[in-house]
Formats: sequence, structure tokens, C-alpha cells
Amino acid sequence: MKTIYLIGIGPGGPEYLTMQAIETLRLIDCFFMLEKDGRGKDELIAARRAILARYLPGANPRVATRTSPERRMDAEGYREGVRQWHARKRELIAEMIEQELAEGQRGAFLIWGDPSLYDQTVSLISELVAMAPEQLELVVIPGITAVQALTAAHRIPVNRIGESISITTGRAIAQQDPASIHNSLVMLDNHAEFQHLAGQDLDLYWGAYLGCADQALAAGPLDDISEAVLARREQLRAQKGWIMDTYLLRRRREGAD
Amino acid sequence: MKTIYLIGIGPGGPEYLTMQAIETLRLIDCFFMLEKDGRGKDELIAARRAILARYLPGANPRVATRTSPERRMDAEGYREGVRQWHARKRELIAEMIEQELAEGQRGAFLIWGDPSLYDQTVSLISELVAMAPEQLELVVIPGITAVQALTAAHRIPVNRIGESISITTGRAIAQQDPASIHNSLVMLDNHAEFQHLAGQDLDLYWGAYLGCADQALAAGPLDDISEAVLARREQLRAQKGWIMDTYLLRRRREGAD
Repeated sequence: MKTIYLIGIGPGGPEYLTMQAIETLRLIDCFFMLEKDGRGKDELIAARRAILARYLPGANPRVATRTSPERRMDAEGYREGVRQWHARKRELIAEMIEQELAEGQRGAFLIWGDPSLYDQTVSLISELVAMAPEQLELVVIPGITAVQALTAAHRIPVNRIGESISITTGRAIAQQDPASIHNSLVMLDNHAEFQHLAGQDLDLYWGAYLGCADQALAAGPLDDISEAVLARREQLRAQKGWIMDTYLLRRRREGAD
Repeated sequence: MKTIYLIGIGPGGPEYLTMQAIETLRLIDCFFMLEKDGRGKDELIAARRAILARYLPGANPRVATRTSPERRMDAEGYREGVRQWHARKRELIAEMIEQELAEGQRGAFLIWGDPSLYDQTVSLISELVAMAPEQLELVVIPGITAVQALTAAHRIPVNRIGESISITTGRAIAQQDPASIHNSLVMLDNHAEFQHLAGQDLDLYWGAYLGCADQALAAGPLDDISEAVLARREQLRAQKGWIMDTYLLRRRREGAD
């Protein structure tokens, strides 16, 4: 039996790790790092290594690094493209487990945020476990998400009384009827879709590089701040070479609590 | 200036605290504990004290305890009842800050899960800050939610590819058109509303006392396991005197990822 741990490491700084995550680090024989080319690859790997250096001082843990496959855009539609991309990624993970772990050993992926939210590693490894349940086991350690860093930084509740909240993507919010947006957290939005939602009585709570040293925040009526946030976003993206942001869209209401 | 910290302590055991939360504990002059009568009051206060004992050994921190006001059911409707209840709670918090903290001191509430999710303390204290911004400051430290403990325990993603997720309450799910449920996390459901959702092609991922030593889990097609989960729920509630559970309803789909 081999065991794979998916360890949620939170949105940025090492202070977001839980005690459970820190204690789990000490059990691991090999840390697997899969990173896409571009989009801050070196910075993201350096941040993971800083977490290991802080919590496993002097241990010099074994790290196996691979370049994560790209999602190809020429496939038959979005869904099929994602399916093929996941299949390649699953294969690469199976190879790493085969090559890097001996029988009885423990491997781990350090997952930004929480392994359950917009990260498909948990599904990919579950599929590998389903193929060989006597040989492979999966353990998930939750972590703080960028969403939680966002609401903490703005000191706001995720939901107001009697209200549900939707967690969604830029892709999905662009397709949604704007009138149906009441309380939506938007992640993975490369195109700043909020810019198309003026005149909807929405408030915007925005954050970039959440939980990191260079965290940027803005909040206010969307109609008033949308342009300034867009400009800031472009400036940050140019400075750093990449941006990762998350935001909450909330419909203003009478007698708000 | 006085500062109030809302420290998310996760869903149960002390291993869910982040390093940020642990480091914040060391700054606090007085811990405020507000607990409703019933529903495991003594157990919840004991669990908070265990967290302080573990992370502030030998420090004997100052703790101020009050009984949280009850929501009265005879008020004019649900919303007005909640509004009055919050007003009383806000007043009690203002009193505690006045009585327990000297100028320049730091007080803290240890909040189960994350201070932003289904806990109104962040709103109540924000209102107090808005009344006296030169005298009071608020800092929020995020924590792991029961939702994250649920998905980690079941080793499932919160969302599937291209799908949004809704976080909602028992009250709201009972009023929702069952056909519109695709991917809903239900919290604060005293009445196990899932029992009314048979025949909807939904899978149920259920957990009680998530993140605690007595955590209970069940997963499967809702139509198949609903009765067993209901029975288990009643048995646990009878044993312990109270129950706190959370669940995910997920519509089955063809070629699921």
C-alpha cells in the first residue's frame, strides 16, 4: 500500500497552514510538485519550498518536480478539452507514484487553498484509488481558501441573514443572468467578468494575491470602483507577470444587516 | 483604541487551528465566550478552553463568559426575530468590551469554523466599529469550516468541472425547487430536510460532529441511504443531547468526472 496526502496549504503565506497540515508534513517520504509553465511557476514552487523549510527545518525532504500538462485549446469543445487534460494529468501522477514511492511510503501534494475547491487533484487520485484500492490510499487535509482570506481581509460575512451564497467561476458568471446574482464568489476569472455587470446594484469586494505579502484589496459599489479595479489589476499583472484574484458580488438591499 | 479579534478555530479538534490563529492567541488580553444555553454549551466551552490550554500552556489566560441571548420565536416573523436577537447580542458584546478591556487591550472571540460563514459576530462587531471607528478595531483570522472537513473526510471536490456550488441552509433548501438543486452544501439544518428530496437523482454526502473525535459519516444515493442517515442522526442526537451536521446534495450525472 502507498498513501497519497493532499495537504491544503492555504492561500499564500506559511501562517495559513493548520497544525494538522504541519503534523502531516512530518510523515511524508516524498513531496510531489506539479506546476504549469508560466503564471509564476518558479515563484509558486519557491513558496512551497519555503513552507517545507519553515516546518521541516534541517530535514531536507525529498521533492519530485514535474511540469504539469497544458490544457490544449484545439480539442472538441471545453469539456472534452478538460477531460483529455485531466487524463494526461492523471497518467503523470500515476507515473510519479510508481517511480517515486516504494511500497508502504507516503507521498504528498501541497495544494494551494483547500484540496476540495477548484482543484481536480482529489478527483484524479480518487480515480487512481478506484482502479487499485488495495494498493493506493488517499487522505485529504483541508486548508484555508482564497475565499476565506478575502472575506477575512474585508471583515465581511460570506452570507447575510437568510441568504445563500454561490461559489462560481468567471466562465459561469459570464453566462449567468445578471439579475439572478445576489451573493456570488467568483474564482478563476482571467477576464475580470465583473466589468460587464454595471448598473446591477452590486457591491464588489475584490482581492488579488490573497494571503500573500503583496495582497491587494478593493471594495465598494461595483459601478463606482469597477474601472479603478480593472486598472489596478492590469498594473499588478504587468508588474508581476501574472495575477490571481477572487471577488464577491453582492446585491445591495434595503435595510441590509 | 481597543481591538477585537475574531479567530476561526475550525470545526472541532485543536489540530484545525492555523499557525496564524495560534500566533494570534498569544496577543490576547481577554477571551470572550458567548454560548447559548443547551445544545452542548458546557462541551463547547470546554472545547474552547482545551484549545487555550494546548496553545497557551501555563499562561492561564483571562476568560469572560456570558450566556448568549436566545432568539425569541414570538416576534413578528423570522427576519424581525433575527434582527431583535442580533440587537441584543450586539449590546451584550458592547458591554463586554466596555467592562473587560482597558484602553489599548485586545479581546478575542474563538469562532467555530470560519468567522465569515454562518456566524453573525463579524457583522455585529463591524456595526460597533462603524459607531466608534476611533475606539474600536476588528481583525478576522480565517478558520477551516465544517464544509471543508466534510469534503476532506469524503475525499470529494466541492465542485465538479464547470459547475457552481451553492452554500445554503436547511430553511432555504426546504423552499427551493428540488429540480434546481445540482450541487448544494447545506448547513444549520435542524430538520434533516434531505428526507423530503427522494426521487431526485441526488447523491448525499453527510457528516455530523465534523472534525471532532466522534465524527460520523455517510455517503451514497440519497434514495438508498436517507432512512439510515435519519435513524443514525436520531440515535446520535439522543446519545449526545445535541447534533450538528452538514451535508452535500449532488445531482448524479452522465459521464461524471
